[in-house]
Amino acid sequence: MRLADPLLQRGVRVYDIAFWRSTADEPLHRLGREIHYPPVIDVLDPYLLLVHQGMVESLFIEDLKKRGVEVRRNTAFDSYSVCENKAGPLQVNCRTNVTQERRSLLTQYLVGCDGAHSKVRKSIPEAKPVGLSQPMVWGVLDGELVTDFPDIWSKTLVYSQEHGSILIIPRERNMTRFYIELKTSPRADKSQFGQEFVMQRAKEIMAPFEVGWKYIEWFGRYQIGQRVASRFCDSHRRAFLAGDASHTHSPKSAQGMNTSMHDAWNLCWKLNLAVRGLAKPALLESYEQERRKIALDLVNFDYEHANQIAGGDAVALAENFRTNVRFISGIGAEYGENAINMPASQSWVMGEAKPGCLLPPAKVTRYLDSNPVDIQLDIPMLGQFRVYLFMWDVHQSRIFLETFCQAIASSKSLISQLSAAASISYAKQPRAPAPEDIYLRPERYTAVSHLFTFALITTMPKADIEITDLPPLLQDSRWTFYLDNVPELDTRGSLCTNKWLGSLGPGEVAIVNVRPDGYVGSIGRWDSSIDESGEEAAQWMDDYYSRFLQVPASVQV
Amino acid sequence: MRLADPLLQRGVRVYDIAFWRSTADEPLHRLGREIHYPPVIDVLDPYLLLVHQGMVESLFIEDLKKRGVEVRRNTAFDSYSVCENKAGPLQVNCRTNVTQERRSLLTQYLVGCDGAHSKVRKSIPEAKPVGLSQPMVWGVLDGELVTDFPDIWSKTLVYSQEHGSILIIPRERNMTRFYIELKTSPRADKSQFGQEFVMQRAKEIMAPFEVGWKYIEWFGRYQIGQRVASRFCDSHRRAFLAGDASHTHSPKSAQGMNTSMHDAWNLCWKLNLAVRGLAKPALLESYEQERRKIALDLVNFDYEHANQIAGGDAVALAENFRTNVRFISGIGAEYGENAINMPASQSWVMGEAKPGCLLPPAKVTRYLDSNPVDIQLDIPMLGQFRVYLFMWDVHQSRIFLETFCQAIASSKSLISQLSAAASISYAKQPRAPAPEDIYLRPERYTAVSHLFTFALITTMPKADIEITDLPPLLQDSRWTFYLDNVPELDTRGSLCTNKWLGSLGPGEVAIVNVRPDGYVGSIGRWDSSIDESGEEAAQWMDDYYSRFLQVPASVQV
Repeated sequence: MRLADPLLQRGVRVYDIAFWRSTADEPLHRLGREIHYPPVIDVLDPYLLLVHQGMVESLFIEDLKKRGVEVRRNTAFDSYSVCENKAGPLQVNCRTNVTQERRSLLTQYLVGCDGAHSKVRKSIPEAKPVGLSQPMVWGVLDGELVTDFPDIWSKTLVYSQEHGSILIIPRERNMTRFYIELKTSPRADKSQFGQEFVMQRAKEIMAPFEVGWKYIEWFGRYQIGQRVASRFCDSHRRAFLAGDASHTHSPKSAQGMNTSMHDAWNLCWKLNLAVRGLAKPALLESYEQERRKIALDLVNFDYEHANQIAGGDAVALAENFRTNVRFISGIGAEYGENAINMPASQSWVMGEAKPGCLLPPAKVTRYLDSNPVDIQLDIPMLGQFRVYLFMWDVHQSRIFLETFCQAIASSKSLISQLSAAASISYAKQPRAPAPEDIYLRPERYTAVSHLFTFALITTMPKADIEITDLPPLLQDSRWTFYLDNVPELDTRGSLCTNKWLGSLGPGEVAIVNVRPDGYVGSIGRWDSSIDESGEEAAQWMDDYYSRFLQVPASVQV
Repeated sequence: MRLADPLLQRGVRVYDIAFWRSTADEPLHRLGREIHYPPVIDVLDPYLLLVHQGMVESLFIEDLKKRGVEVRRNTAFDSYSVCENKAGPLQVNCRTNVTQERRSLLTQYLVGCDGAHSKVRKSIPEAKPVGLSQPMVWGVLDGELVTDFPDIWSKTLVYSQEHGSILIIPRERNMTRFYIELKTSPRADKSQFGQEFVMQRAKEIMAPFEVGWKYIEWFGRYQIGQRVASRFCDSHRRAFLAGDASHTHSPKSAQGMNTSMHDAWNLCWKLNLAVRGLAKPALLESYEQERRKIALDLVNFDYEHANQIAGGDAVALAENFRTNVRFISGIGAEYGENAINMPASQSWVMGEAKPGCLLPPAKVTRYLDSNPVDIQLDIPMLGQFRVYLFMWDVHQSRIFLETFCQAIASSKSLISQLSAAASISYAKQPRAPAPEDIYLRPERYTAVSHLFTFALITTMPKADIEITDLPPLLQDSRWTFYLDNVPELDTRGSLCTNKWLGSLGPGEVAIVNVRPDGYVGSIGRWDSSIDESGEEAAQWMDDYYSRFLQVPASVQV
């Protein structure tokens, strides 16, 4: 996903961290500065974007509205129950917030995104929040500063041995956020830590620099624990937990909204396929497997990180940060082996495209209009899988391509049967369109199938090939025919083929199956000079997708 | 100016041109493809963006609306007259379009952007359209094609010796524009060239490829001349012409809207300074000098270009295109020497920053928050001049900087007096604010002066310098303190200092004065080890700006 223009314009981009310290022997001084995302993190946008959560929410709310969906508010969840017929709908019991009138809703699935005190979580007997509370209390101040401290436009850590730590985060509208550690005895009355007290503590930590506020927009205080729910769904896989309902931690590494969006992002395409009857149980099972691991990774990192911020050991903190920076950036959120993520041993992994991982950025040229594109983002995310075929020379691998495409298109193939079932399903229940679709043209990517977008990537010169040289399935995928010829535009100066695959032999064909959320599912390789290799590859595709997809009984022949 | 997100998303980016030809001996075939903007064109966005003119207009209309300005329509210009007192307002006589009721308006200036048949132009006795009509008639078809022709997503020239030429332009919403040459005898009745006729001609030129239309959104026909008005303003410099009112040409090189926007862009900041009483007559005189030259350049290029498209000589066309591609891209629109553009001989020009030319793109790091920025775009365009100070080491050039800043800040300096006058003027008549200013913070760039934003660019390491090391004037310009340390992000892998200045000696200081429209005005260089050099530079600044700016009599002490 790329960020929308309003977020970039209204947010603040942070590229570095500064460390400051005062001890009994030394007044406050800068220990140094570091780049926030060092070059080892291969991302297109190597910065923190500080942006008000409300702006992100309104992007989603507006997008839903354009597609005819309004968020309904003021209805509180009370409880839910499973039908006696286990396959039937769930009954969800609610109250309207104002009149407390009871209401019941019937639904196939329920997702509790209802925060740290989630009532949905409390309704799932197996889902217990597991973890510890932290004794530390932190104050938060958002406001516009008047100060001679020079580093308020970087992420900055200020440690005073005597008075405690401050984490400084630049914000939009000239504001600065302070997270202020409130050193206190365990028995202290926390209600004394009002705004005036917290401002005074901040001034003490920042001395000898002057710190004042033109205005304070928000003051808060928190004491938080690191907790992860023992289960992220009920035993029927009908009720799910996401966001703070499933994990809580400190806000300091900015992982709250981000991790929660990724929970939803992981779950939504699986639910879509389940609702359409195309998912085996293994697909929904993978949600908990994948996202609970990330929540545990996060909570462990957060525990160390929060303690080290308070501990003032800049060296240890920088070390901890370097270890975790891939994770913090989001691209280090990696899933283990399961039904969708084929074990690497079965997957011919030699490059940076790895099952369970996001695709690293790469630049290629779209054959059709010669536009350079970010290939990992170019195909719009429509809930479909992406199937990338790599080869050095399309003519040399022609037989492979023809037999592969024929086998895929044959009515016997699972891919073909799944596509037919998806066609019926999307005809009944289409994707909700938005007015800008007339410009973005999502139908270019579903001409062959609503479930699979096929893409061809080759290093051969444009002059040596025409669209009409391709098998029909790939002619119908002409918007996803790419030339791998612009390494100079890549973050690492690399061809996509080399970055993703490590190496590819002459005459070799590789296939990378990418999940609807952009994670790699499986990778295969074939010697295209062998007669049967095209059919073998098609069979391998069927084998892979049969692990977690099915043709609904209602449309089976 | 960078393009707004909606234009990028709704437009079509074109990176290459294809050439096709059929003759008596050879059926239609592709002669070759070329990159549209080859690397020699140093621009950030090396492509054509095809975008509906209405979208561009609505961006401007929406921006005006946000700032409280509504475009008033349905009032037709009739005539205007100058007061007996020449300094008084113009009287403009109009009619409402519906009731034909007469109205008079009083105005200080009048700008006729009223198209090829401009009534404002006809009211200026000296302004005659000079040029020739072309005998060729062209048809234009916008619609969605059904075709097996492969190159409809590139800019494509198809030449048929027998039937004429077509220029193909990809458009948004899956549409394709065809410009179709209508070969005809001079005496033919042009009214016979209806839509059916033009479609038939297109099919003949494109044969043996099939061409059909799902729908045609627009059909047009034109026969145009290349004409430039002999004057772009009246003898009092009170009434001006811009856009089609001052120049007409064929639409094929997409220079119509672009050249017209640049006319307005050139004129608006000059009018702003004139209205505020800060401009000497030379400033408004420069509008015609600069923009009439561009219009003549354009018309000459367009004449050759249109003839060569019709002539089918792909080699000559490609040659003509290569010669003119800098001009077509916009960065080759260069102005001659005049009051604002200091002759190069007086300007120490050794790099790509040249008086009368746009700044080529360069990347630097903003000191304050370590953000990499496009320096030529970073300072928002608020009608003010930009003054870039370059040096390798700020400490080494400290004495220069201090004496320069002191002299500039002294009440005796013209810069200081102009700034004081601008302060009074902007207090009376502020820039119209927009709601997003709260995020964009234009006031960061006018803290020192409403008329000049000072910027410092150095190659020294961030760790070696603090904001407090700078003279007060530059401390107050902290958002425009830049580190020249990211050549790897530049289009040419170059430091900004080297690209713009060619070379800069150790201890040397260079100053680049940039006009409000982004064109370089003048360049100076000093050896900062010489005691008087700071004062000399300040005096040079005063000398330069006194060529076209003045302190209004009303505020002179």
